[in-house]
Amino acid sequence: MTPIMPKSDAAELIAAARIRKKLSWSDIADEIDAPLVWCVAALLGQHPMEAAQAERVCALLDLDTTVAESLQLQPSRGIDPAKLSDPTIYRFHEALAVYGPALKELIHEEFGDGIMSAINFNVDIKRREHPDGDRVVVTFDGKFLDYRW
Amino acid sequence: MTPIMPKSDAAELIAAARIRKKLSWSDIADEIDAPLVWCVAALLGQHPMEAAQAERVCALLDLDTTVAESLQLQPSRGIDPAKLSDPTIYRFHEALAVYGPALKELIHEEFGDGIMSAINFNVDIKRREHPDGDRVVVTFDGKFLDYRW
Amino acid sequence: MTPIMPKSDAAELIAAARIRKKLSWSDIADEIDAPLVWCVAALLGQHPMEAAQAERVCALLDLDTTVAESLQLQPSRGIDPAKLSDPTIYRFHEALAVYGPALKELIHEEFGDGIMSAINFNVDIKRREHPDGDRVVVTFDGKFLDYRW
Amino acid sequence: MTPIMPKSDAAELIAAARIRKKLSWSDIADEIDAPLVWCVAALLGQHPMEAAQAERVCALLDLDTTVAESLQLQPSRGIDPAKLSDPTIYRFHEALAVYGPALKELIHEEFGDGIMSAINFNVDIKRREHPDGDRVVVTFDGKFLDYRW
Amino acid sequence: MTPIMPKSDAAELIAAARIRKKLSWSDIADEIDAPLVWCVAALLGQHPMEAAQAERVCALLDLDTTVAESLQLQPSRGIDPAKLSDPTIYRFHEALAVYGPALKELIHEEFGDGIMSAINFNVDIKRREHPDGDRVVVTFDGKFLDYRW
Amino acid sequence: MTPIMPKSDAAELIAAARIRKKLSWSDIADEIDAPLVWCVAALLGQHPMEAAQAERVCALLDLDTTVAESLQLQPSRGIDPAKLSDPTIYRFHEALAVYGPALKELIHEEFGDGIMSAINFNVDIKRREHPDGDRVVVTFDGKFLDYRW
Amino acid sequence: MTPIMPKSDAAELIAAARIRKKLSWSDIADEIDAPLVWCVAALLGQHPMEAAQAERVCALLDLDTTVAESLQLQPSRGIDPAKLSDPTIYRFHEALAVYGPALKELIHEEFGDGIMSAINFNVDIKRREHPDGDRVVVTFDGKFLDYRW
Amino acid sequence: MTPIMPKSDAAELIAAARIRKKLSWSDIADEIDAPLVWCVAALLGQHPMEAAQAERVCALLDLDTTVAESLQLQPSRGIDPAKLSDPTIYRFHEALAVYGPALKELIHEEFGDGIMSAINFNVDIKRREHPDGDRVVVTFDGKFLDYRW
Amino acid sequence: MTPIMPKSDAAELIAAARIRKKLSWSDIADEIDAPLVWCVAALLGQHPMEAAQAERVCALLDLDTTVAESLQLQPSRGIDPAKLSDPTIYRFHEALAVYGPALKELIHEEFGDGIMSAINFNVDIKRREHPDGDRVVVTFDGKFLDYRW
Amino acid sequence: MTPIMPKSDAAELIAAARIRKKLSWSDIADEIDAPLVWCVAALLGQHPMEAAQAERVCALLDLDTTVAESLQLQPSRGIDPAKLSDPTIYRFHEALAVYGPALKELIHEEFGDGIMSAINFNVDIKRREHPDGDRVVVTFDGKFLDYRW
Repeated sequence: MTPIMPKSDAAELIAAARIRKKLSWSDIADEIDAPLVWCVAALLGQHPMEAAQAERVCALLDLDTTVAESLQLQPSRGIDPAKLSDPTIYRFHEALAVYGPALKELIHEEFGDGIMSAINFNVDIKRREHPDGDRVVVTFDGKFLDYRW
Repeated sequence: MTPIMPKSDAAELIAAARIRKKLSWSDIADEIDAPLVWCVAALLGQHPMEAAQAERVCALLDLDTTVAESLQLQPSRGIDPAKLSDPTIYRFHEALAVYGPALKELIHEEFGDGIMSAINFNVDIKRREHPDGDRVVVTFDGKFLDYRW
Repeated sequence: MTPIMPKSDAAELIAAARIRKKLSWSDIADEIDAPLVWCVAALLGQHPMEAAQAERVCALLDLDTTVAESLQLQPSRGIDPAKLSDPTIYRFHEALAVYGPALKELIHEEFGDGIMSAINFNVDIKRREHPDGDRVVVTFDGKFLDYRW
Repeated sequence: MTPIMPKSDAAELIAAARIRKKLSWSDIADEIDAPLVWCVAALLGQHPMEAAQAERVCALLDLDTTVAESLQLQPSRGIDPAKLSDPTIYRFHEALAVYGPALKELIHEEFGDGIMSAINFNVDIKRREHPDGDRVVVTFDGKFLDYRW
Repeated sequence: MTPIMPKSDAAELIAAARIRKKLSWSDIADEIDAPLVWCVAALLGQHPMEAAQAERVCALLDLDTTVAESLQLQPSRGIDPAKLSDPTIYRFHEALAVYGPALKELIHEEFGDGIMSAINFNVDIKRREHPDGDRVVVTFDGKFLDYRW
Repeated sequence: MTPIMPKSDAAELIAAARIRKKLSWSDIADEIDAPLVWCVAALLGQHPMEAAQAERVCALLDLDTTVAESLQLQPSRGIDPAKLSDPTIYRFHEALAVYGPALKELIHEEFGDGIMSAINFNVDIKRREHPDGDRVVVTFDGKFLDYRW
Repeated sequence: MTPIMPKSDAAELIAAARIRKKLSWSDIADEIDAPLVWCVAALLGQHPMEAAQAERVCALLDLDTTVAESLQLQPSRGIDPAKLSDPTIYRFHEALAVYGPALKELIHEEFGDGIMSAINFNVDIKRREHPDGDRVVVTFDGKFLDYRW
Repeated sequence: MTPIMPKSDAAELIAAARIRKKLSWSDIADEIDAPLVWCVAALLGQHPMEAAQAERVCALLDLDTTVAESLQLQPSRGIDPAKLSDPTIYRFHEALAVYGPALKELIHEEFGDGIMSAINFNVDIKRREHPDGDRVVVTFDGKFLDYRW
Repeated sequence: MTPIMPKSDAAELIAAARIRKKLSWSDIADEIDAPLVWCVAALLGQHPMEAAQAERVCALLDLDTTVAESLQLQPSRGIDPAKLSDPTIYRFHEALAVYGPALKELIHEEFGDGIMSAINFNVDIKRREHPDGDRVVVTFDGKFLDYRW
Repeated sequence: MTPIMPKSDAAELIAAARIRKKLSWSDIADEIDAPLVWCVAALLGQHPMEAAQAERVCALLDLDTTVAESLQLQPSRGIDPAKLSDPTIYRFHEALAVYGPALKELIHEEFGDGIMSAINFNVDIKRREHPDGDRVVVTFDGKFLDYRW
C-alpha cells in the first residue's frame, strides 16, 4: 500500500506538464468543461475533482493515474501564511483591509445581519480594456446567509 | 491647540448620528454624490475627504466641525487583525485563501507578471436576486500593473 | 452627539445589574422569550437585539436607554485571543483539536464536500444527570452547506 | 531497530487503503465495534488503539503490522494551527468565538465554577433531515468538573 | 448602575492595603481560614470568593464593599503572555519545557492515557532548609483523569 | 565523517526499543541507577548522559553505539510550541497560568526578591491513592536564588 | 512634578498645528534649517531635537513649551507593527522582500562582509518628473561597516 | 514527468557555480545585458527570466537546462521572516522603521494620497567614496500611484 | 485606599525630574551609593529599592512619597516586545543571535552543562577610548550554575 | 554541479569530528590563531572564514574540502527563534530584558544619541574564580556609533 500522492505534489506535476506542453489554464478548463477559476483552484488542490474530470486532465497532460487519484481527494483547505505576502495575492487582502469594513456595513444595510457565503460561492476574473491600461476585474458572487437561529 | 480628532472617533460619532437619524449609507453617499463603497470607507476612516464633502456630511448628520476636520485628514491605513475574524469579513479572506492562488495564475496567464492595483482600484457591491436566496456580488476592479524595471 | 455605548460596556452593565438583582440568565431569556444561548450571546454583544427585546431587558434590569440602544447595534464579532485560554472555553477548543479532523472526515463522508454552517446555526446546552457526576451536553446544529459553484 | 511508524504516516496509509477499498469510516468502526467519532479520531492519530482493534483494522485494510504497531502508540495530541483554517473545521471554532462566552456563563450558572471535561468526554455527529436543507448535529458530552481544592 | 469593579482593580487595591498595613498573605489566608496558595490566587483574581470570605478580607484591609463584590465575581481565567517572561514565573515554564515530556511519559506509564486535572487540583509551596541554600518546594496535586468515552 | 545522530532520532529509537522489549521507564532508570524523571528527560534528549550510562541503556535495549554517542551530546534545550498544547502537558501550564502569580507572591514573601532555580532543581512524580480517584502528585524542588548584585 | 509629554502626543499637536496653520513640512524644515526627512522624522518622535530647534518649531506653530521639552527627549525608537501595513509604507518593505537578498549579495560583492549603517545614515526623497507619471525617488545613504573583530 | 526545479534549488546551483567559476554578479548581468540588481534578484528567484537570458546564464555557468527552465518560472514572491533578521538586510527595515512615517508624510505632501509603486519600480546600488569610510547608496525609484477610484 | 503608583509611572516622573534638574544617572547612583547599572534599572522599575534609598532619591528629585512607595514595590519583570526593536537595545540581541550559540558552546566546554545565572549577576558599562572612535564595553558577570539534580 | 554544503551541515560535521577527536574549541582556535569566540561563531556558521583558515580546520579534523568550501561562504545571519529558549542562551536575553533599558539610558548619557555597534564589535568570555562558585564573565566591546546625518 502506498499513500495517495499529496495534492501539492500533484499540483507541481500539473504545473510542469502544462508549461512543457504549452497549454493554458483555459485549455484545461475547456477540456473538462469546467468554470475557469474553479478548475485552476481544483488543480492547485483546493477542490476535489470527479474521477472523469481528473482522468481527462491527466490524459491531456500525459500524467499517470496517481495524479488523477490525488485530484479526487477531499482537500484540507486553509490559509497559507506564506502565500499572503506574494504581491499579486497581497493586493486583494490589502483591498479588503481598506474596504472590508465598508463591505460589512453595506451587506448589513442591504441584507441584514449575516454574511456572503464563501461556500455557495463563485468567482470570476475578466480583463477589461481601458485606455489608461487594461484592468483586472474580479467578481465574488456568494449567497447571502442571514444569522438564523 | 488641541489634537485633531482621531478618525476612529469621528467614525463612531458618524455611526451614532446615522443610526439615530435613521439615515442609510446610501443617503449619505447620495448627499455628497460619491460612490457608495468609497463613501463608507472614507467615513470609516480609510480615505481623506475633501472639505466640501466632509462639511456636507457633518451638516446632514448635525455633527460639528471637529468631525469634518478629522474626515479630511490623511489616513494611516492598515490591516487590523481584530477585524479579520468578524465572520462577514472573514469569508472574503477565506475565499482568497481558496481562490487566491488561482487568481494569481490567471492574472499571470492573461496579463503577464504583475498585479492588480489596489490603489488605482474600485469596488462595488450589488444584490443579485436569486430563487434559492439572493446573492451578494462584489466586484474588484483594478488596473493591471506589470513588473516594469 | 455622543457615540453609542460600546457593546462591551453594555455587557458589563448588564452583568452588574443581573448579579445585584439576583436574576439568572434564564430569567432574562424567559422575559424576552428568546432561546437561552442566543439570548446570553446577544447580551454579551454577539448578536443585535430587536428594539422591543432590548427595551424589555433594560426595563427588567433598571438600565437606561443608552444600554438598550447599544444592544440593537450590529456587532463586530471576532475571535478574542484573550478568551481562548479561559479553561472553561479552552476545553471546547481542545476537544476540536482532538476531534475536529474526525468531524471533518465524517461530514464529508455523510454529506459530501462542504461545511456545517455557523450562521444558519443554533446551539443548546443541557445538564445531563449521571451517577458518576452530571454532564454538560452541548449541541451544535447547523445547516449543511455544500461547495456549490 | 527501526523507529515506530509515526501516527501521521499510519493515518495516510489508512486513508489510502480506505479509499481504494471503498470502505466507509462506518465500515471500519463497525468492524471493531467502536464509537464512530472515536474510531476516526483514533485512526487519524488522536487516541491509542488496543492491539486487537489495531490488528483488525489492518486486516480489514490489508495493511501490515507496522501500521498496527503505530496505532497502539500513545499519541502526542495538540492544536495544529494548519488545521484551524480549513473551512469545515473553522466553522466550529467560529461558533465558539460567538457562543463560547455564553456557554461559559451558562455552565457557571447551572453547575458553578468549573469546566466541561474534554477527557471524560464524547462527541457524536448526526444528520438531521430538514426541509430547508439537512443539518449537521454535533453533540459534545463531557462530565462537569468543578474547581475543587 | 455602575459596573462591578474589575478583578484586576480589586487586586491592586488589595496589594496596596496589604503593603501599607504590613500584613502578609498568610495573615489574610489565616483570617479567612483558606489554603494559602488558593487564597492568594483568589485575591489576584483567579477564583471567586464566597461573600463571607470576601467581606472578612475587606474588613481586615479596610476596603469597601465594591472590592468585596468584585472578589465574588466568576473570573475569566487565562494565560497572560506578559506574565510568562517574569523570571520568577518563567522558571516554572522552563522546567516544564525540560521535564514536561518526561512527566507525560510517566503519567501514561503509571496511569494510562489521560491527564492530571488542573481543576480538581491543589498546589502547595514550602520552604525547605538546605545547607547549600534553602529550596523552594512546590507540589502540584491533581486527580488523574483518563480518556473515557 | 558522519554527523552525530540527533537526540530526537535517538529518542525515537529508544521509544521503539522500549515498547518492543516491553520495558518500563522505571526498568531503564533502575538499570542505570538514576532518578526516574531525570532519566526519562535525558533519554528524550534534555540532558547529556555519561558514557557508562548511555552504553548500559543501549545494551539493555539492543541499540548500537551511534545511539549511545548521541545520548552523551550536550543538548540544546528549549520550549517546543508543538508540545505546549498536548493536553497532558497543557494542564501544567494552565495551572501555572492560574497559580503562577500567586506562587510569585509567596516566593517573594517567604524568600525575598528572587527565583526558584530551574537548574539546581529536581522534579518528582508520584501516584497518590484516593477514594475519589487516584491523584498525580508532582513536586518541583529548586534552590532559591536571590537577586544578588 | 508632571511627566514630560510623550513624543506621540507632541507629534499629534504638531500635526494639528501644521494643518490648521497651513504650513508644509518644508516650511518647518526651512525654519530650523534642517534636512527635510530628518526634520519630519524628528517631529514624529524618532530623533531628539536641540533646544533651539525645538523652540523655533514651537514658536512657528504657536505650541507651548511642554511640546518643545518633549521634542528634546531621547526617543525610544522601534518597529511599530501597526504601521507596517499602511500601503504607502508597506511598498518599501515589499520592495525589500523582493530586492533585499539581492542588495545583500551586491553589498558583499562590492564591500565584503558587513552592512550599510542605519545610524551613520541619511535618506532623501525627490520627485522625478516622467512622461508616464512622476516618480518617487528615495535614496538611502549609509556608511559601510565591515565585520571587524 | 518530473516537477520543474524549484527556484530556490536553482539559486543554490547558481551560487555554487558562480563561486567556483569566480564570476561576479556583474559578470553575469553584463552577459545578459540586464540591470544589476534586477539580474541578481531574478537569479535568486524573485523575477522570471526570458528563455534567452536564462539559457545564456546557464551556458556561462555550465548549468544544465533544468536550471534554465526554472529561471523562466513565474515566481511566488513573499516576505521571508527568516531573512528579516540578517543584519545586512535588517538595517534597511530598521531605517524604514525610523524614517518610514516621515517618507509617508512627504509623499502625501508632495504627491497627494497614494503610494510609490513597488511594481513599476527599480532599485540601484552604488559605492560612494568618502574620506570617513565609503558609503552604500541605494536608490528606490517607483512611479507614484494616487488612490484613484 | 488608592492603588500604589505603577512603577512605569514612577519611572516617568523620575525621568522628568532628572532632566529638569539636570542631574545625571551617576549623580543619583552616587547619592544612594549604589552600582550605576543596578540603580538605573531599579529606577526604571526592574528592582525593588529599600525604603531609605527610595526616599533619598525622591528627596534629591523633589518627588513625593507616592513615588518612593512605588520604588519599593516588588517588580514584575519581563520581556517587553516593544523595546526589542529600539536600535540601541536591538544591537545587544543581534550580537547574541550571532554569538549566543558560540557562548553556549564555550560555557559548556569550560564549565560543563549549565548556565550563567541572570540572578546572581551584575553588569557594568564603561567607555573605552580608542583612536578609531570610543567604544562601549559592557560586562556581564554571573555565577555559573550547573544542572544539579 | 552540486550545491555548496549548507553551513549548518558543515557545523554538524565539525561538531562530530571535534567530539570524536577529543579536541576542544580552544585547540581549533589556536590552530588557526583566531580569537576564541569568533572562531566558534565562524565554525557554527556565523562568519565566513578565509580559505587558509578553513583548510587548516578541515585538515585538523580530517574533514574534506566540501566542508572547507562551505566555511568560506558568506553567511546569512539571523535570529533563530528555536535557540532563544535554550536556558544557557535565554539567560543573556533575560538579562537584557532587565538591564537593556538601563544600558540604553547610560549609553545615551555617556555618548549621546547612538548605539554600540554589533559589527565593529568583539566579545570575550572568561572564567572568574570565586569562593561562592566560579563566574562566567562575558564582555561585549563595540564601537559607539552616533546618529549622524
